[in-house]
Amino acid sequence: MTEIADLIADMAKRARSAARKIANLKTDTKNKVLLSTAQRILDNRKALQEENKKDLENGRAKGLSSAFIDRLELSDKVIESMAQGLREVAALPDPVGEVTKMWKRPNGLMVGRVRIPLGVIGMIYESRPNVTIDAAGLCLKAGNAIILKGGSDAINSNLALASILQDALEEFDIPKDAVQVIPTTDRSAVTEMLSREEEIDLIIPRGGEGLIRFVVEHSSIPVLKHYKGVCHCYVDKGADIDMARKICFNSKVQRPGVCNAMEGMLVHRNIAREFLPGMGKEFQEAGVEIRGCPETVKLLDFAKPATEEDWGQEFLDLILAVKVVDSMEDAMDYIDRYGSNHTEAIITKDYHRARRFLDEVDASLVLVNASTRFNDGGQLGLGAEIGISTSKLHAYGPMGLEELTTTKFIAFGEGQIRE
Amino acid sequence: MTEIADLIADMAKRARSAARKIANLKTDTKNKVLLSTAQRILDNRKALQEENKKDLENGRAKGLSSAFIDRLELSDKVIESMAQGLREVAALPDPVGEVTKMWKRPNGLMVGRVRIPLGVIGMIYESRPNVTIDAAGLCLKAGNAIILKGGSDAINSNLALASILQDALEEFDIPKDAVQVIPTTDRSAVTEMLSREEEIDLIIPRGGEGLIRFVVEHSSIPVLKHYKGVCHCYVDKGADIDMARKICFNSKVQRPGVCNAMEGMLVHRNIAREFLPGMGKEFQEAGVEIRGCPETVKLLDFAKPATEEDWGQEFLDLILAVKVVDSMEDAMDYIDRYGSNHTEAIITKDYHRARRFLDEVDASLVLVNASTRFNDGGQLGLGAEIGISTSKLHAYGPMGLEELTTTKFIAFGEGQIRE
Repeated sequence: MTEIADLIADMAKRARSAARKIANLKTDTKNKVLLSTAQRILDNRKALQEENKKDLENGRAKGLSSAFIDRLELSDKVIESMAQGLREVAALPDPVGEVTKMWKRPNGLMVGRVRIPLGVIGMIYESRPNVTIDAAGLCLKAGNAIILKGGSDAINSNLALASILQDALEEFDIPKDAVQVIPTTDRSAVTEMLSREEEIDLIIPRGGEGLIRFVVEHSSIPVLKHYKGVCHCYVDKGADIDMARKICFNSKVQRPGVCNAMEGMLVHRNIAREFLPGMGKEFQEAGVEIRGCPETVKLLDFAKPATEEDWGQEFLDLILAVKVVDSMEDAMDYIDRYGSNHTEAIITKDYHRARRFLDEVDASLVLVNASTRFNDGGQLGLGAEIGISTSKLHAYGPMGLEELTTTKFIAFGEGQIRE
Repeated sequence: MTEIADLIADMAKRARSAARKIANLKTDTKNKVLLSTAQRILDNRKALQEENKKDLENGRAKGLSSAFIDRLELSDKVIESMAQGLREVAALPDPVGEVTKMWKRPNGLMVGRVRIPLGVIGMIYESRPNVTIDAAGLCLKAGNAIILKGGSDAINSNLALASILQDALEEFDIPKDAVQVIPTTDRSAVTEMLSREEEIDLIIPRGGEGLIRFVVEHSSIPVLKHYKGVCHCYVDKGADIDMARKICFNSKVQRPGVCNAMEGMLVHRNIAREFLPGMGKEFQEAGVEIRGCPETVKLLDFAKPATEEDWGQEFLDLILAVKVVDSMEDAMDYIDRYGSNHTEAIITKDYHRARRFLDEVDASLVLVNASTRFNDGGQLGLGAEIGISTSKLHAYGPMGLEELTTTKFIAFGEGQIRE
C-alpha cells in the first residue's frame, strides 16, 4: 500500500464508523449543527477569505481563466449564500425514519419500509468551494457521513471550510469524521477512494464529462452520475404561438450556461412559417446564434446551416440548434437519438399528443407547456439538490434529501415462523 | 472488435430498440404474453427436456456434482413451477404508470413522479434454466427488455426456453429482441456485456461471491448485488423461551442452504443458562453442528469450540455459530462486524429494546420476534422477486417488480417560465 492508499483507507474507515453514529441523530441535533455551521461561516469570514486568497493567488499564477477564478472565489456574496443554504437545509423535513409503507401479512406479521441514510457518500467535484458546504449540509441532514474530494485548486478553501464544519460537529458531541475533506491534491486519492467499496456506499461525481467517465470506469462503488443536459422544446402544430415563444425563449436565454437550458428546438412543419420568423427575431435580438436545418435557414436568413455535430450538442452558450420536423413521432425519434435523458418539453394545445409525449419520452423530467429551466430540485419543490441524475438507478432527475437515503424492511412479529 | 464484441454490441442495440417499444405496452398485453409463454412451456415439455438432456449429459460427462445436475434439470416439476411462476407474475399489479406522488407548485405547475421501466436489464446467473423464465417474466412485466447470460452448462436449455418466450412475444407483435439469451459460452461475452453502458441500464448478477465481485469490478453499468447472507438471531434477556426456540429453530433448520437462514445465534448472558440447553438439544436432534464460544461450550457438551473463522461464516448447511453476549449493545456490535446487511432478528419481550434494535441495526430486513426466513419477496408480500439486494442503492432487500422500475418527473404547465 502506498501512503495515499493508507490515508484514504483510514479516512474511509473513520467515516464508516462515524456513519453508524450519525444515522440515528435526532432531527433537532442535525439542524443545530447546520445552523451553527452557518453562523461559524459568517463569523470566520476573514479567516476563510485568507485561506481562499492562497487558492486564488495560486490559480492566477497558474493562469487559470477568469471564469474559473470566479467560481473559486469565496466572495462575501458566496459566503452569505453558503450560510443561507445551510439554513434552508435545516428548515427542510428530515427524510430519515419515514415509514413509506406498512402492511399486514395473512400470518399477522406487520411489514414496513422505513427510510434510512445511505451511509458514507464520496463526493468528487470541481474547484468550487461552496459545493463543500452545500454537499456536506445535505448529506448530514440525510444522516450520512461524507468524504469530499474537491478540485485541487480549491484545497486551502476546502480544508478551512471542513474545519469549520468539524468544529460545529464537535460542539454537539458528534464525531467530526462525519465530514472529511481529502487533504491532498494527489490524483491517486480519487482512484483509492473509488476502491473503498467496503466503507463507501455511493460516489457522486460533479464536473466535466471526462471526469465522470473516469469515475464510472474506475469505481467499484455505485455512482450517481449526470453526464450532460441536451434539452429540447418541441413546438407542436397548433400550439399557442405566444406561449411557445415565451417558453422557448426562457428555456434558452434565462441562463444558457446550465444543464437544463434548451440546446435544440424542434418545430412542427405546419407551424414553422407562423412561429419561426417572430421567434427567430427574438433570439437574434438576445444574441442567440441559430444553427438550423435547411427549412429553418430558408425562414430565418440570419441562421447558419447546422452541421451533423450541432444536433445533440451541449452548447452551454447562446447557440441553438433548430430543426423543422414532419410529425411528433419525428420529434420523439430525434429526442431519442440526440437527447441526454435530462429534460424534454412539448408546447401543444392537443390533449392526446400531450399525454403521448409524457408517456413515451424518456427523460428525467418531461414537461407540457413549461420551460425546461424547471428541472431543478428547488423549482420542482424538493428543496436543495446535490445534482441531477440522468441515469435511472436509484434516482432519475434532481437528487434532494430523499435521494440521499434508502429504505430497509422492518417486521413486527409475535413468534411467526415459516411453514 | 472481436466477433464476440460484435455479437454483444448487436444484441445490446437490438434490446435497447425493443425496450423503447415495450416500455408502454398495455398491462393486458404483457399478461397475455406471460400466460401464452406458460402454456407454451407446458406444450413443449418434451422438446425442452430433449434440449435439457444434452446439457445433463454434457454435465455428467464433465463430472459435475449431483447437486449441480439437480439444479440443471428441467424435471416435470420444474417445468410446471416455471409455468405457475409466470401465471403468478401475470396476476401481480403492473408497476408501470403508477403516479407515486403529485403536487402543485406555487406557480401552478403540477409536478408528479411516475413509475417507468428501467430499460434494458442484463442478467448473469448460474446454470439454473428456470431462472431464465423467472427473470424474463419479471423483467417483461415491469416493461424491461432483458439480455440473459446463464451458466454455460445450461446453454441448450436456455436457448430452447428463450425461443419459446420469443414465440410468445411474436404472437402479440412484440419485438422478440425484448428477450435474448447470449448464444455462446465464451466467457468474454460477460466482459463485453458489462461494457455496453450506452444500451444496458442495470446488471443483476446471481451466483457465487467470486462471480459477483468479478461483475462489480468490471462493470461500468450499475450493478444490483447480493454478496451473501450471514443472518443472526439475538435472543434477548427475558425473551419468551418457547418463542425464541421456535424462531431460532425455524431460522436455522427449515432450509439451511439459503441466504436467509440463520448462521449465527447470539444469546444474552442472563438467559443463556435457561435457554441454551433445551435449544441445543433440539438442534442436536436435528443434526445441527454447534460451534460455540467458551460459555456455549460449557453449557452444551456436544458443541465444538468456535474458531475466529466461524464468526460471520456463511455455512449454508446444518452448522451454527453460537455466542453468549453481555448486552444488546454487544450483540449489535457483533452484527455490525460479522453480519452481511441481509437479515437480523431480535427475540425479546422488551418494547424499548425492540425499538432500538429496529432503529440501529443496518440490514435489509430487521425483524422482531419472527424468523429470518421471511426475507423473501413472496413472504413479505411483494410477489415474486429477482434477488435480494444487500447494497443500498436503488434497492435494499428483496427486489420485486417495483425494484425493476424507476420514476421520472412529469410536469403539466400552462405556459410557466422561470423568473
